[in-house]
Amino acid sequence: MSSIFGERLKISIFGESHGPAIGVVVDGLPSGIKLDFDKIETEMARRRAKSRAYSTKRHEKDEVEILSGLYEGFTTGTPLCAIIRNQDTRSADYSEMERLLRPGHADYSGYVRYKGFNDIRGSGHFSGRLTAPLVFAGAIAAQILEFHQIYIGSHIASIYDMKDVCFDRTNITKEQLFALKEMELPVIDQSCIEAYLEVIEDARKNQDSVGGIIETAIIGLPAGIGSPLFDNVEAKLSQALFSVPAVKGVEFGEGFNITTMYGSQANDRFYTDGSRILTRTNNNGGINGGITNGMPITLRVAIKPTSSISREQETVDIKSYENTTIKVRGRHDACIVPRAVPVIEAACAVAILDLIIGQFGLETLSEGEL
Amino acid sequence: MSSIFGERLKISIFGESHGPAIGVVVDGLPSGIKLDFDKIETEMARRRAKSRAYSTKRHEKDEVEILSGLYEGFTTGTPLCAIIRNQDTRSADYSEMERLLRPGHADYSGYVRYKGFNDIRGSGHFSGRLTAPLVFAGAIAAQILEFHQIYIGSHIASIYDMKDVCFDRTNITKEQLFALKEMELPVIDQSCIEAYLEVIEDARKNQDSVGGIIETAIIGLPAGIGSPLFDNVEAKLSQALFSVPAVKGVEFGEGFNITTMYGSQANDRFYTDGSRILTRTNNNGGINGGITNGMPITLRVAIKPTSSISREQETVDIKSYENTTIKVRGRHDACIVPRAVPVIEAACAVAILDLIIGQFGLETLSEGEL
Amino acid sequence: MSSIFGERLKISIFGESHGPAIGVVVDGLPSGIKLDFDKIETEMARRRAKSRAYSTKRHEKDEVEILSGLYEGFTTGTPLCAIIRNQDTRSADYSEMERLLRPGHADYSGYVRYKGFNDIRGSGHFSGRLTAPLVFAGAIAAQILEFHQIYIGSHIASIYDMKDVCFDRTNITKEQLFALKEMELPVIDQSCIEAYLEVIEDARKNQDSVGGIIETAIIGLPAGIGSPLFDNVEAKLSQALFSVPAVKGVEFGEGFNITTMYGSQANDRFYTDGSRILTRTNNNGGINGGITNGMPITLRVAIKPTSSISREQETVDIKSYENTTIKVRGRHDACIVPRAVPVIEAACAVAILDLIIGQFGLETLSEGEL
Amino acid sequence: MSSIFGERLKISIFGESHGPAIGVVVDGLPSGIKLDFDKIETEMARRRAKSRAYSTKRHEKDEVEILSGLYEGFTTGTPLCAIIRNQDTRSADYSEMERLLRPGHADYSGYVRYKGFNDIRGSGHFSGRLTAPLVFAGAIAAQILEFHQIYIGSHIASIYDMKDVCFDRTNITKEQLFALKEMELPVIDQSCIEAYLEVIEDARKNQDSVGGIIETAIIGLPAGIGSPLFDNVEAKLSQALFSVPAVKGVEFGEGFNITTMYGSQANDRFYTDGSRILTRTNNNGGINGGITNGMPITLRVAIKPTSSISREQETVDIKSYENTTIKVRGRHDACIVPRAVPVIEAACAVAILDLIIGQFGLETLSEGEL
Repeated sequence: MSSIFGERLKISIFGESHGPAIGVVVDGLPSGIKLDFDKIETEMARRRAKSRAYSTKRHEKDEVEILSGLYEGFTTGTPLCAIIRNQDTRSADYSEMERLLRPGHADYSGYVRYKGFNDIRGSGHFSGRLTAPLVFAGAIAAQILEFHQIYIGSHIASIYDMKDVCFDRTNITKEQLFALKEMELPVIDQSCIEAYLEVIEDARKNQDSVGGIIETAIIGLPAGIGSPLFDNVEAKLSQALFSVPAVKGVEFGEGFNITTMYGSQANDRFYTDGSRILTRTNNNGGINGGITNGMPITLRVAIKPTSSISREQETVDIKSYENTTIKVRGRHDACIVPRAVPVIEAACAVAILDLIIGQFGLETLSEGEL
Repeated sequence: MSSIFGERLKISIFGESHGPAIGVVVDGLPSGIKLDFDKIETEMARRRAKSRAYSTKRHEKDEVEILSGLYEGFTTGTPLCAIIRNQDTRSADYSEMERLLRPGHADYSGYVRYKGFNDIRGSGHFSGRLTAPLVFAGAIAAQILEFHQIYIGSHIASIYDMKDVCFDRTNITKEQLFALKEMELPVIDQSCIEAYLEVIEDARKNQDSVGGIIETAIIGLPAGIGSPLFDNVEAKLSQALFSVPAVKGVEFGEGFNITTMYGSQANDRFYTDGSRILTRTNNNGGINGGITNGMPITLRVAIKPTSSISREQETVDIKSYENTTIKVRGRHDACIVPRAVPVIEAACAVAILDLIIGQFGLETLSEGEL
Repeated sequence: MSSIFGERLKISIFGESHGPAIGVVVDGLPSGIKLDFDKIETEMARRRAKSRAYSTKRHEKDEVEILSGLYEGFTTGTPLCAIIRNQDTRSADYSEMERLLRPGHADYSGYVRYKGFNDIRGSGHFSGRLTAPLVFAGAIAAQILEFHQIYIGSHIASIYDMKDVCFDRTNITKEQLFALKEMELPVIDQSCIEAYLEVIEDARKNQDSVGGIIETAIIGLPAGIGSPLFDNVEAKLSQALFSVPAVKGVEFGEGFNITTMYGSQANDRFYTDGSRILTRTNNNGGINGGITNGMPITLRVAIKPTSSISREQETVDIKSYENTTIKVRGRHDACIVPRAVPVIEAACAVAILDLIIGQFGLETLSEGEL
Repeated sequence: MSSIFGERLKISIFGESHGPAIGVVVDGLPSGIKLDFDKIETEMARRRAKSRAYSTKRHEKDEVEILSGLYEGFTTGTPLCAIIRNQDTRSADYSEMERLLRPGHADYSGYVRYKGFNDIRGSGHFSGRLTAPLVFAGAIAAQILEFHQIYIGSHIASIYDMKDVCFDRTNITKEQLFALKEMELPVIDQSCIEAYLEVIEDARKNQDSVGGIIETAIIGLPAGIGSPLFDNVEAKLSQALFSVPAVKGVEFGEGFNITTMYGSQANDRFYTDGSRILTRTNNNGGINGGITNGMPITLRVAIKPTSSISREQETVDIKSYENTTIKVRGRHDACIVPRAVPVIEAACAVAILDLIIGQFGLETLSEGEL
């Protein structure tokens, strides 16, 4: 019953959307890491509400206050706690929520789980806002990974029925991933930006919402990371990824599509350039038997359409147990996918760093290349 | 670096395909559970090689010896260790494996991870054979769940490009799930059995292999099981499911398909029949915010085509670092999907029982309905 | 490498003595617990510096701010984060610490562990001040335990060479434990208060310090709590107790003294009063085979003399690697034992509640007697 | 509710005294360790019943069969399972146990914990016999530690009221520890062997038993191992040590005795010989703030007198709830302390190796000095 992730690098996330603050304790960091706050702020900004059509009008400043674990700009190696005060909350918007269950949300399941005692304002602990501390923790993890030449980046593979091309899974560069991070709608084929904006705008006009798929790549990981069975890289990453609200599917490499291939196509044939062992294709997304094979890890994550929509929807009054309808008020993103990108990357970063610390140890991590 | 799963019910799997034995320690069981060995044997038999076209000729007897944790037929509450001796192994078949990396397998990633010290005969600890102890543990977990009216069942949703219909996700009965368990190729639409057998036979003839998708349902779970963030039901189940070899994707409810719906379609509207709260659709697969909502949990798992194929494939000689080719000898399943069904169900059973013990406690579990 | 305790109830403590704040995340609490802040403040006050001879002059207000997990006075069941801002710090006092290792402190071991990056002001994360969030968490745990008629209390069994009498281990009442909580120097034999104050005052005058032994009792626990081997009650409690700074020994019941008894004396003979099974003696401190037997749990904890003393002591300059001397400046307690009492009780409370949640489940905990 | 120890190196112990077998799964070992079976057998032999006055006549062969994780003599890095078949059991001896609770044993607490379903023959899972797999796991851990120049050894500090001298805690050599391992009754002052044998023989003649104290030293650990708070070296070691049956107290360095020292005596003053930092005394047993300081770790463990004695003792019939008496039949050790020595060392070895793997990582461990 835990909001803690990780075996060696432990991420403990707390807070409710309309409580005093949200935050995270990052336990198990190496000491002596100089945190780059500009990079952290860049990641936080990517997650924040944007001024475009698809995003809520709520302006969260997300000012992070670090309470511990940092001294003169360097990590101390002791637990790092960071909090973000909640501001700009309009509790009045959520008054109906005490009675009417919002379809697609955790209103009912949370009500039963917490026996009606959870703070439901703004979805409370279930709020997408809780991804802010995850992005903060992920940004720290990503810095440490980058120090070891491990990079994580993503593009939006689809929104509603519009699709981007896939990563060339055998050839993903650091430069490509960095370029994607610069884009407000990160895509490989630039022409789909317009298509994406259009389906989002259509949904918004119809008081409706759309979801999409994010494809993420992790490059620079050496072969041999992970373990078979329960501590494998796919299991670890999927645990982190399914912890992000709105995620309904996770697949690696070709994923579900691999089931429509023959073995002779699906198998990634090995070859060597003399010094390294590589694969001709990368349908397995860089992972064989739960362990990295040195090729890029690629994974795809399904983000469902935003649950909060202004349209009238059938529901139940939990107090009177009567059927009724609800129009969810407040400010909603017509499409959460762009803001989910840095969250998915953060989940990957903490999972990968946890695996690496487990295998290489804290001490090794400050000494450059793995 | 662990082959242990679970927080309260801990499953520790050990063994190599051609070592003396494989097995499992199940730690954290309630005491006083009378094990039904016929049911356990039924599950073990479902996983074993079948005499049909799609399956290997290797006949494993899978005779389970229980070493601890059972006294006069009842669980003692102390760790239950069960082992299965390895028999009918033809080590000669695997002699080439020391040099030639089999595409699709963990030969290379495992070689790096274990620095060449792992037992590679029959894939060693990576062998699909290691799913036998998981099925054993799952069969015990399923018995305890069934005592609490929680049932797990599956159908093969697709093989290669042939598809079954989906579960009616709002209406899945115990009887339907039991009927599926009786079928060698469990499907909802009987007409697809012939199609499935055909694509498998085609692959076999071509010295090739095919994969598919398994859709699993878990019914009878009360609302309110699980937690937001990292201990949520989807995260827990996916961690167990990705631990099964050959799984490359996991999705809940409509999964990836939900990204092509509008929010107004994707949201499962609540209604009440006066006593219970239900949803009109079940696109979210019975889970909102990581917590069960009382509707059936449904999930889909992508099983890649069997990696071992007799066809010649490009590869590398790990000793000489030279490019070469390999024909994987030995007995292979042209399609592993039917045998994977009880394994997927077992992974679900141990994950769900772990969650339930965490929430309701060991003591409650012997007292009937949750 | 973790400042997290517990399997089901997870306590994550963070902060440095002179950083912005210290605090704790309590994860896994049942929902719907009405927190009694007067009781919490009473425990916090017991830990704080007292105005008596034996205690530091530093006045910490310890104002707790709850950031999450509490709504309208009740626990929500989601992670509860509480922070205490650091005030009244005189960093100037600690300037020498960057070079000179204080004997008895973690200055050297911490320097190596964190490669010189830890915040050493006021001992940083090693500070006794970090016990404040533990006491806070313990006070919440104790409230839940008391709701189930489980009570924890202590007396100071010795200071330096002065000794109190022991608990009558077969007969400890709630009233006795509550009375001890009211005493500034909790003792059974009132006559030893004067002796205790005298040895403390002697030490203070000599710019020296003294330690002592705390004996703690936990009553009301039913028989059958715990497990053999690694999850046993003694292992769990000792892990929590040794996490309190200055603890150098933990023993249960007669502890080390039981090694000077014959088996026939040491064995606690069973008898029944017709309804319950009891023991004539309680040399095993209520625990057999790692599991409670229904008798009071009693344990004793050795608290070493305060490491900070004003006397000149031999040491090393860590920068120049030269032998030198140090006089530790600042405000020190001549005896930390009285302030350690609520900390020891808090450590017991979180350990016991963790065990109980594991065994009885979260759901059971809100329904009264176990 | 777990018989699993460790965060990175996980030791899962299973079995009952009179079931088919006992055993252990050691998960998280580095690959490529050549196991020295002579050394393992030496440790197993130290734990086994000896032919002297103080020991039971039961002759257990303790033949270890390794089922997994070992290939051609080297660890594979995958879970290593070892089992020991139970032989030479005379179940008839234990028939009374179903009704009569043996004082000092877990008969009552285990009965409640497992609701009467646990296998009580020979104490079942509570049997001291379960320490055999722990010694096996410890012997493997010790080999890896020795490869890194970390050595563990012990002497019997006392039996009943007879005492050995203490370790010179600032100066303990590998040679001294190896010499102690050669002795059937390991002591520093040889003259106390006679005294020990005498008090044991006295107890045996009186159908009684005695306990004692074991002092263990761990040398060669670098400074900087461990963490403050819950993951500290003392907490970790004590968790492992209290998991050994019959342990009722654990203390480090001067332990409880440190409470009778002044701070100026208790503090271990630092000095440098130019290259290393050392302490003049070692009252803190090599640990400051939960972290090693490079001096020898020393700890003392209280072993209670053997609970099984032939004398008549008061007890209760658990079936009829009537007061009665019991004479425990069977073969008992009049003093278990000598056989407990390798068990205590094994518990230390697994705890220390777990800490080291956590901090230095699996990969580093095969590369010599830490």
